[in-house]
Amino acid sequence: MNFSSDNVTPICPEILAAIAAESDHNALPYGADEKSEQLDAAFSRLFGTDVCVVPVATGTAANVIGLAGLVSPFGGIVCHHHAHINVTESTGVAFYGGGAKLLGMDGPSAKIEASSLETYLSGHVTNGMHSVDPECVAITQSTEFGTVYSVEEIQAIGNVCQKHDMRLFMDGARFANAVAALDCHPSEITWKAGVDALSFGATKNGALAVDAIILFDTELRQRTEQNRKRGGHMFSKHRYLAAQLLAYLEDDLWLRNARHANQSAVALAQSLENMGAKPAFRPEGNELFIHMTDELAQTLRDGGIVFRNWPSLGADAYRFVCAWNSPIDLIQDLPETLGHKDQNSIA
Amino acid sequence: MNFSSDNVTPICPEILAAIAAESDHNALPYGADEKSEQLDAAFSRLFGTDVCVVPVATGTAANVIGLAGLVSPFGGIVCHHHAHINVTESTGVAFYGGGAKLLGMDGPSAKIEASSLETYLSGHVTNGMHSVDPECVAITQSTEFGTVYSVEEIQAIGNVCQKHDMRLFMDGARFANAVAALDCHPSEITWKAGVDALSFGATKNGALAVDAIILFDTELRQRTEQNRKRGGHMFSKHRYLAAQLLAYLEDDLWLRNARHANQSAVALAQSLENMGAKPAFRPEGNELFIHMTDELAQTLRDGGIVFRNWPSLGADAYRFVCAWNSPIDLIQDLPETLGHKDQNSIA
Amino acid sequence: MNFSSDNVTPICPEILAAIAAESDHNALPYGADEKSEQLDAAFSRLFGTDVCVVPVATGTAANVIGLAGLVSPFGGIVCHHHAHINVTESTGVAFYGGGAKLLGMDGPSAKIEASSLETYLSGHVTNGMHSVDPECVAITQSTEFGTVYSVEEIQAIGNVCQKHDMRLFMDGARFANAVAALDCHPSEITWKAGVDALSFGATKNGALAVDAIILFDTELRQRTEQNRKRGGHMFSKHRYLAAQLLAYLEDDLWLRNARHANQSAVALAQSLENMGAKPAFRPEGNELFIHMTDELAQTLRDGGIVFRNWPSLGADAYRFVCAWNSPIDLIQDLPETLGHKDQNSIA
Amino acid sequence: MNFSSDNVTPICPEILAAIAAESDHNALPYGADEKSEQLDAAFSRLFGTDVCVVPVATGTAANVIGLAGLVSPFGGIVCHHHAHINVTESTGVAFYGGGAKLLGMDGPSAKIEASSLETYLSGHVTNGMHSVDPECVAITQSTEFGTVYSVEEIQAIGNVCQKHDMRLFMDGARFANAVAALDCHPSEITWKAGVDALSFGATKNGALAVDAIILFDTELRQRTEQNRKRGGHMFSKHRYLAAQLLAYLEDDLWLRNARHANQSAVALAQSLENMGAKPAFRPEGNELFIHMTDELAQTLRDGGIVFRNWPSLGADAYRFVCAWNSPIDLIQDLPETLGHKDQNSIA
Repeated sequence: MNFSSDNVTPICPEILAAIAAESDHNALPYGADEKSEQLDAAFSRLFGTDVCVVPVATGTAANVIGLAGLVSPFGGIVCHHHAHINVTESTGVAFYGGGAKLLGMDGPSAKIEASSLETYLSGHVTNGMHSVDPECVAITQSTEFGTVYSVEEIQAIGNVCQKHDMRLFMDGARFANAVAALDCHPSEITWKAGVDALSFGATKNGALAVDAIILFDTELRQRTEQNRKRGGHMFSKHRYLAAQLLAYLEDDLWLRNARHANQSAVALAQSLENMGAKPAFRPEGNELFIHMTDELAQTLRDGGIVFRNWPSLGADAYRFVCAWNSPIDLIQDLPETLGHKDQNSIA
Repeated sequence: MNFSSDNVTPICPEILAAIAAESDHNALPYGADEKSEQLDAAFSRLFGTDVCVVPVATGTAANVIGLAGLVSPFGGIVCHHHAHINVTESTGVAFYGGGAKLLGMDGPSAKIEASSLETYLSGHVTNGMHSVDPECVAITQSTEFGTVYSVEEIQAIGNVCQKHDMRLFMDGARFANAVAALDCHPSEITWKAGVDALSFGATKNGALAVDAIILFDTELRQRTEQNRKRGGHMFSKHRYLAAQLLAYLEDDLWLRNARHANQSAVALAQSLENMGAKPAFRPEGNELFIHMTDELAQTLRDGGIVFRNWPSLGADAYRFVCAWNSPIDLIQDLPETLGHKDQNSIA
Repeated sequence: MNFSSDNVTPICPEILAAIAAESDHNALPYGADEKSEQLDAAFSRLFGTDVCVVPVATGTAANVIGLAGLVSPFGGIVCHHHAHINVTESTGVAFYGGGAKLLGMDGPSAKIEASSLETYLSGHVTNGMHSVDPECVAITQSTEFGTVYSVEEIQAIGNVCQKHDMRLFMDGARFANAVAALDCHPSEITWKAGVDALSFGATKNGALAVDAIILFDTELRQRTEQNRKRGGHMFSKHRYLAAQLLAYLEDDLWLRNARHANQSAVALAQSLENMGAKPAFRPEGNELFIHMTDELAQTLRDGGIVFRNWPSLGADAYRFVCAWNSPIDLIQDLPETLGHKDQNSIA
Repeated sequence: MNFSSDNVTPICPEILAAIAAESDHNALPYGADEKSEQLDAAFSRLFGTDVCVVPVATGTAANVIGLAGLVSPFGGIVCHHHAHINVTESTGVAFYGGGAKLLGMDGPSAKIEASSLETYLSGHVTNGMHSVDPECVAITQSTEFGTVYSVEEIQAIGNVCQKHDMRLFMDGARFANAVAALDCHPSEITWKAGVDALSFGATKNGALAVDAIILFDTELRQRTEQNRKRGGHMFSKHRYLAAQLLAYLEDDLWLRNARHANQSAVALAQSLENMGAKPAFRPEGNELFIHMTDELAQTLRDGGIVFRNWPSLGADAYRFVCAWNSPIDLIQDLPETLGHKDQNSIA
């Protein structure tokens, strides 16, 4: 069983079928095809408001291009110190943002708290053109520590942003897991709470490679598409991005996959706790951070379980990530199923 | 029949099969998987020398990231005025190149001539830090006008570059068509002629979305990979890029597809000439530029043939692009087959 | 006698006096001082309209920061192939412009002709986000070949820009020489003709180091000041830039200096023609481009005259630049005064 | 008496005289003049090792251009959270550094401690191309809180940098004040301790506008000069920067000015303590941070003393900056001299 990340998973069958179905005919390039032209309407239905959809192939591209529309080259983006954009995306934000600066802040379990944000923004003293003033806040849902902002928490952040005339961006690489966990309407944690742009992840949750920038402020379209083009992210065979996304939405595949991943994480947490592990945070999405003894870690690894050390949480900390294809039965029956091979095992 | 571009084509069956075959198991992300780890060796065998392979998903990405390794932020890239990088890639070269500047020059049929290049470079008077001095030459093979540099032409360009201590880059979005046309070993028109980096296109010739940056100077790897990452082009499910590329090389699929496209273009040229059209250039790859009367253009369009006006060559100029799936039988039998539907027709 | 450039000259006495007068007291930094606060009003009076003044210390800074307000990172700036911004400012325009691209065009004596510009812009076929579309036109007044656009010529260019919704920028490193030559009101060749921003040069014409960005579109102020700050061009002792500019305007010092330089150039042209030289262009400002024999060139150099070869106009071409301190009496009496030392001679 | 900043001061007489002396003759531009050509030798003598000198007109330019030579576009610069480059230079570091990122850390009195730096660097876990890895450390001497690193402290930081293969940069906007305070040889706190590049400030200490980038690693010259040029910081009348710097070094003017400023700060600290203020840090250079009551602050202001609130140190915190022209006699005799006018008073 492999829990090293959800990006080790293959394409799920429904999305592979959509790719195959697209492959028996020609179609117009650069988004002028029939599938691509359905995207705005499909996501507008999903979110219950008019949105623009700008698909790209990676989560990093979705984040850095999405953010580039929300901040000037002289401005700052407030984010959590542990935010993916701050830690794992090289200098991509400054690159696409023309120099825009990430301003890290703390908060429990990788969450920004609205009250802390209010303190941060109220305490910022501008020095005019000399200082980098915050222009945007970026949050990750679900977070880098597997926790999920509640609807109320995001609304509170949105209120602070509105008060301070800040833009609000959401890194939703695992947005589906958050919506599945909250069992809310996707609008509740996005535009209704003031989110201007969302990185809507599909790659980790069953797609080949597609994350969509969802623009709730549709005036951002031109700038975002220009950044996408010159960044090299405008696919000629754009229909393959569209086909993946449409299949991902159809019959709520995105939520079904996410629910499976989340339930697997809950089951895994239970099994590991039974074996003596202690969760670092209450698992809410599909990521699980635990503390355990060296002995237990060794037992799991000897049994073919793959997972990562997570030293930023301590020498005894580890991360397990479940996914749409996690073998929930085997997980529930741990430790009896240690050593069983499954489709998730890497040869 | 649709000849508007080779990017209207779907994935070819072999590459779709490779994607499907990759989809029943997990694998390590970010290029650490088994397929990705075969890339350097596979392309080194193909080219007969040690190369580094850095796959990305679009031709623009391959060009702008490939070039960014060959030029400083203060330097110039000599290219043809009609080069794709100069005309159709927004300000991508300056973006990834940190300000590097394209220096356009003329030449017949979108080709840079070695003698003109020598004159250009010899005539350039540096003004030290004030001027933008050429550091790199970029050529497209096959060219934007469907012509193909001969082995000797590229060697001559390579010699001029060597004399002037210039780097040499090749935009090979249609590299396969050029190799098929020349019936040469791929090394002859690349590293043996002094090419430092090649954009090796697959997307237009049967892949879903993958063009590979081939680094003949393997010391360029780190910088190129760093640019790829922060540009948002590092795929987590990198194996799907690798799987496409390996299938593309297997049993010379890349050449078989290209030969079909080239032969279709020859057949199309013949058929159109029979109908009264005149080629603007001798078609060598899979692109065909012709002059014809309004009447003939209308006849073709009435018969369901799709193609583009090409005003930069005159009001009576048009472009036709053949591809791996062009219906060569129907093409040969023009004008009798006007009106026949084929898989290439866009609904 | 030194005619190698007008930037070899020292500060003129009036401006040195202004610097000295500023040096017996403290004053607020960053433009909050009394002198700086007079700038907008002083230049608004000069131009007869409300302007914003953003002083910097070099002509390159004035050009690249001025242009950065007029063009998007995805856009093009149409300029003459010989424009200083295209030839002598490294990759500064792309740097400050976030990738914005210079699009060179031809024209006689370094001038863009309105009719050619109209042809260029009408002929440009946009390819949407793929192409670099012209957003701005930049002209140099007086030009890089010492010629001066007439009022009508600039108005015609302004009309073309307006028709095509282009911004218009003027590199006025030698603006004073142009106004002196035309004997027009400065408004006639700037905002009344549609110029959005002007680089108003003082350094070559008597100042220590100050060129002012004059914004006729005052909404450009914030962006321009932000670019100035982060480019490192916001002087703490801003009053010294202001003091230079105010002294430069006082009693029309800028025009008096420029007239002297222009008259010297006319005298020099006459003297050199008498000795057998032929002007390449009719000298209109303070720069003189001539053709002459090797023998004459040697005679002049033997007599202590300093000037530059100008190979882009031919092997027998040379440039002479006069300035506010040119020894017009010695010039008029050439060749008798060959060998005379003057304040312009470089030890 | 005005203590709002040392940048409110005028040019000191010696430097004004040097500017005047340069103003009766022509000279070659762009650093080819006699004065500019003396710079490398003069500073090499001062530092006791071969250095390259790259003068610019502002401290921000010196910092951001100096740093751009020490870090890649993908790398990080470790600095104190309160560092001028992090707080007061807009997004200049990322602009010139092509995206390079500032990584803030804490430390007492705006100093980075070697032990904390060691912990920071040892604890950094690289994630390869995904993470921003530290490549450079930047310290300010004297610091933003008026404290001065001891020779031993800088050597310890240099040792940590060497161990971790980091470059070391010093923002020396008030370098003279630090050397005067330490009474050390300037080599002791720069190249002998491992500093690769220094921003050597003159503007705040008597010059009109010049700060010099001193490159102890002389291989940095080309890149630094290229960045200077395209940033618009290459002065045509470069000799005026050189003349200021040479006068600044002559007869140790730089140290005499700094000693006066430092002694004034000590005297001011004593006078203010006598009146009831408490220093926030022991004043070592020319800046003084104190806590005092509202009543005392009002008394001082009523007596014509100008200074700033400094809220980042508390509601009762204030900054006073002394300079080369501070009226030390009036300062020593406070509070008796409240209300006296001096040359420092701003009208």
